[in-house]
Amino acid sequence: MADLNTQIVMKRHPQGMVTEADFETVQRELPQLQEGQALVRNRYLSLDPYMRPRMDPLRSYVEPLKPGELMPGATVGEVIDSRSTQLPKGALVAAMLGWQTHGVVAEGTVRVLDPKMSRPSAALSVLGMTGVTAHYGLLELAKPKAGETVVVTAASGAVGGVVGQIAKIQGCRVIGIAGGPEKCRYVVEQLGFDACIDYRAPDFEQQLAQATPNYVDVLFENVGGPVFDAVLQRIADHARIALCGNISQYNAKEPYGVKGMRQLLMHRVTVYAFVIADHRGYWPTALADLSRWLDEGKLKLREDVSEGLHSAPAAFIRMLTGKNFGKQLVKVG
Amino acid sequence: MADLNTQIVMKRHPQGMVTEADFETVQRELPQLQEGQALVRNRYLSLDPYMRPRMDPLRSYVEPLKPGELMPGATVGEVIDSRSTQLPKGALVAAMLGWQTHGVVAEGTVRVLDPKMSRPSAALSVLGMTGVTAHYGLLELAKPKAGETVVVTAASGAVGGVVGQIAKIQGCRVIGIAGGPEKCRYVVEQLGFDACIDYRAPDFEQQLAQATPNYVDVLFENVGGPVFDAVLQRIADHARIALCGNISQYNAKEPYGVKGMRQLLMHRVTVYAFVIADHRGYWPTALADLSRWLDEGKLKLREDVSEGLHSAPAAFIRMLTGKNFGKQLVKVG
Repeated sequence: MADLNTQIVMKRHPQGMVTEADFETVQRELPQLQEGQALVRNRYLSLDPYMRPRMDPLRSYVEPLKPGELMPGATVGEVIDSRSTQLPKGALVAAMLGWQTHGVVAEGTVRVLDPKMSRPSAALSVLGMTGVTAHYGLLELAKPKAGETVVVTAASGAVGGVVGQIAKIQGCRVIGIAGGPEKCRYVVEQLGFDACIDYRAPDFEQQLAQATPNYVDVLFENVGGPVFDAVLQRIADHARIALCGNISQYNAKEPYGVKGMRQLLMHRVTVYAFVIADHRGYWPTALADLSRWLDEGKLKLREDVSEGLHSAPAAFIRMLTGKNFGKQLVKVG
Repeated sequence: MADLNTQIVMKRHPQGMVTEADFETVQRELPQLQEGQALVRNRYLSLDPYMRPRMDPLRSYVEPLKPGELMPGATVGEVIDSRSTQLPKGALVAAMLGWQTHGVVAEGTVRVLDPKMSRPSAALSVLGMTGVTAHYGLLELAKPKAGETVVVTAASGAVGGVVGQIAKIQGCRVIGIAGGPEKCRYVVEQLGFDACIDYRAPDFEQQLAQATPNYVDVLFENVGGPVFDAVLQRIADHARIALCGNISQYNAKEPYGVKGMRQLLMHRVTVYAFVIADHRGYWPTALADLSRWLDEGKLKLREDVSEGLHSAPAAFIRMLTGKNFGKQLVKVG
């Protein structure tokens, strides 16, 4: 085992917009395995918006990253050495190994993937955290009824795309919001949303009003900022908001001030902010539905794959500025 | 019945801060009673913050007031003429008769008060809408557990004062926020909160941090604006916010932008905006508790009474700027 493990660590806390200089690539010796452990060569790394707030030294749901610490992230990889009968060589595992080429996993802490799985990287999207996030936020928190209007921001994104498709399965009227005509076309034509509005359009607010004649019963919010306020102007009585992300603000030096408190109050809205890491017991329920829907062709999946671990910082920045198109992955090896 | 009915109507929609010129006093003939109705001479009118957003021509939970329409409001009065055996002359009734000296009520639409009630005006505060609002928002929505930290804004107000006292009955640590040292003293010494912080103090945020070493599990929000953002900085994981009012913004031309979306998300907060008018069936449950607690001396009640219906506009403005001290009432006659 003469290989080294290549890692990308946070070099320093970003100041506002994250830059490639906030990361550093380091080489480490591969660790020695202990009984019950396996060494994994990562194939895919998932890049997700939640990673950005974890780089800020602020009180949060987990300890913020410290300079020099490995960037976290979900991975799919292959066992290349093992001291575990449950994790034999050649097994494919989904784990939280972070931005590195190799990692060590222990029995009982990883998902061993079905070797017949046609697309193992789906364990990082529809059949992984982003899919489970979509399922939980929509079906457990916002609970849309058939016929209700559901608005999804970042509608072409890894979470938003699944949210909208599930909402269609539930019989809802589904309006996406995305950046640019190409993404909007994809959301309607490929994902089957009823409409999708480009938030960059000069008449965005009028288009949103036209698309929501009965107002907005459910908002699945991934973006925050002025787009959030625009949807609040259209919010329905007793609406439910699943507050999942705030990506427009993750790199902001000064956070946007949300003006729509009046709308929340006057329309008696409930806002459920959530982080899927709190709900580990929910995964089997969600994955059962998501796998079935995927097999039935009811869920479409699009990936945006960046080549090589070294490309992760640039791909991450690209994703945070909305330039990716589909679930952002890094092909590690 | 040569008497006339004096009414105060909204003359025009206020522009920003409401002024006395936005109201007009008019005289009307007393209406003829129909079978099952009674004529009431109002004794007390309740002034409440919700009346201000109803004056704005914006989409809301009820039709906004139109110029010339009677100002709405809860009242306690005496039946002075009757064509109802259920509403005999001399009966005291709590009703929604608005800003007027007289009004007509129908059987089954009003609360007939116990004639032995020591303080009938309590039907407009602790034993009325503000008490039921406090009970519902705290116990049905935010659901504090014993030992949790509960923060209440507008803590000396008609809703806030009851919220904090109920939270103490539940065994919580209760921190009030109020305007000025006199109100803060009252909140601690008379209402029994554990602490009360003056939001006008230059070191308000530091005082709030010191008073909430274990962060804020429940926020009962009546005020909004920068005070809301300050509490969000101290919000605990899985906190619940009962969003009841936004009084700091009711007269604002441009609403304050709430910056704490990050806090909501990172701490997985649930925000329950509510209006008690949606929950009429809840009144008996709440009133049973509130009456018992009042009888047991566990709830204290303070009123700020303005003399004469003509004083209502000035008293209303005074209340909206936080100059009242206790439940704002108008002694109509």
